[in-house]
Amino acid sequence: MKHPSLSLATEAAHALPGQSRYGALAATLRHRVVAGEWPPGTALPAEQLLAAEHGVALGTLRRALELLAEQGLIERVHGKGTFVRQGIAGASMLRFFRFGDSAGQVPDSRILSRQTVPASATVARALGLAPGEPVLRLQRLRLIDAQPCLLEDLCLPLDLFAPLVDGDPADWDALLYPMYARRCGVHVQRAIDDIGFGLLSAPQAQPLGLAAGHPAAVVTRLAYDLSGRCVEWRCTRGDAHAFHYTVTLT
Amino acid sequence: MKHPSLSLATEAAHALPGQSRYGALAATLRHRVVAGEWPPGTALPAEQLLAAEHGVALGTLRRALELLAEQGLIERVHGKGTFVRQGIAGASMLRFFRFGDSAGQVPDSRILSRQTVPASATVARALGLAPGEPVLRLQRLRLIDAQPCLLEDLCLPLDLFAPLVDGDPADWDALLYPMYARRCGVHVQRAIDDIGFGLLSAPQAQPLGLAAGHPAAVVTRLAYDLSGRCVEWRCTRGDAHAFHYTVTLT
Repeated sequence: MKHPSLSLATEAAHALPGQSRYGALAATLRHRVVAGEWPPGTALPAEQLLAAEHGVALGTLRRALELLAEQGLIERVHGKGTFVRQGIAGASMLRFFRFGDSAGQVPDSRILSRQTVPASATVARALGLAPGEPVLRLQRLRLIDAQPCLLEDLCLPLDLFAPLVDGDPADWDALLYPMYARRCGVHVQRAIDDIGFGLLSAPQAQPLGLAAGHPAAVVTRLAYDLSGRCVEWRCTRGDAHAFHYTVTLT
Repeated sequence: MKHPSLSLATEAAHALPGQSRYGALAATLRHRVVAGEWPPGTALPAEQLLAAEHGVALGTLRRALELLAEQGLIERVHGKGTFVRQGIAGASMLRFFRFGDSAGQVPDSRILSRQTVPASATVARALGLAPGEPVLRLQRLRLIDAQPCLLEDLCLPLDLFAPLVDGDPADWDALLYPMYARRCGVHVQRAIDDIGFGLLSAPQAQPLGLAAGHPAAVVTRLAYDLSGRCVEWRCTRGDAHAFHYTVTLT
């Protein structure tokens, strides 16, 4: 599947004046991945073949591949070759929280609402839309052992996620990213989580079984696809007392 | 300066049965750094010299240096050589908080109390002491533009930090780690910060100018010196609403 806006973005990167040869080659290879020539999980052709095909030295090709690996598009598996990354599998919110004995569990998912709504200014800016353009908005509750633990607000651009507008969300998977890939051809490759704190409003507190005004950890996520386009805005709230995260400084 | 306990620790590492040759060499080199032979910030001798001195192949020496670089003890500067790392400079707590327009500012420091107290079970375990052994306990307030922003509890092992037991803390630097290095010969090389949340007790809230029960981000830090010994336990509290932290997932 080829998205016109994505092709434009990568063509533009390809044409940057003053760009190095390996940088231009990396943009071209990214373009081929985004266009679906090598789907996520598949191996790229041998380095010698790719270098010959693009008329560059092997060293130039290798620098381009290093750049794409740094950017998270591909991964080089020692002795096996170079693969297009599968993307983020999901369940990653749980690295910020500890709910009882839940380590390693995938939380259940319950879609509380699904609407097509005009994008707020914040969401429009994140998704690269004009304010007021329609987005698919989901409210989702995540549960562990039938106990509500996280409340999520998601906004998705309609042009990519049309297959999710109809049908029964009760049939959806507990993990969204593999479902985005299967149903919509969208592969989430990178996410930036911004952690902050807030107090729950009454409508936010109720599904979580907490009192209005209860302190919450608030994780605002921007998720990006293969082409670097922001494809998901997500705001996740959970009991602040269940929040834990470890950072090493050297 | 040579600390007997550190030497023992590194000798033990050196003698591990089944250890690889480069692993044993890395332990020996770490021992020489800890003993003060190459102070932080100085360059190690040339690789050929070091390899000859230890009677190993250049490849073995390089693997040992790679291991020490991964562990954060040294850094290899392309074209310049291999240096003992200076350690963490300080001011790092502010990467978790945003107080107004404070980016890049070093907060002022006010020591509220300094006592020699028996270590709690938690602190003793962190610092490798027996519960009840005495530690130097500091309570410190950090201020930006004269506004209190962070309250810190610190516990330090007395054998390393004796020079801080006497003298006027008003003369201390705003950044502790450079002062630990200068006054006590302790170089903090690595810190692990565990972020959680809590509500401020009345004695915690008062110096911060907040109400008892106010939500707080609580950062519990274990800081390690060159030898890998935990030399500081620290618990920092600040207004949860000022907490922000960004994490990228790929």
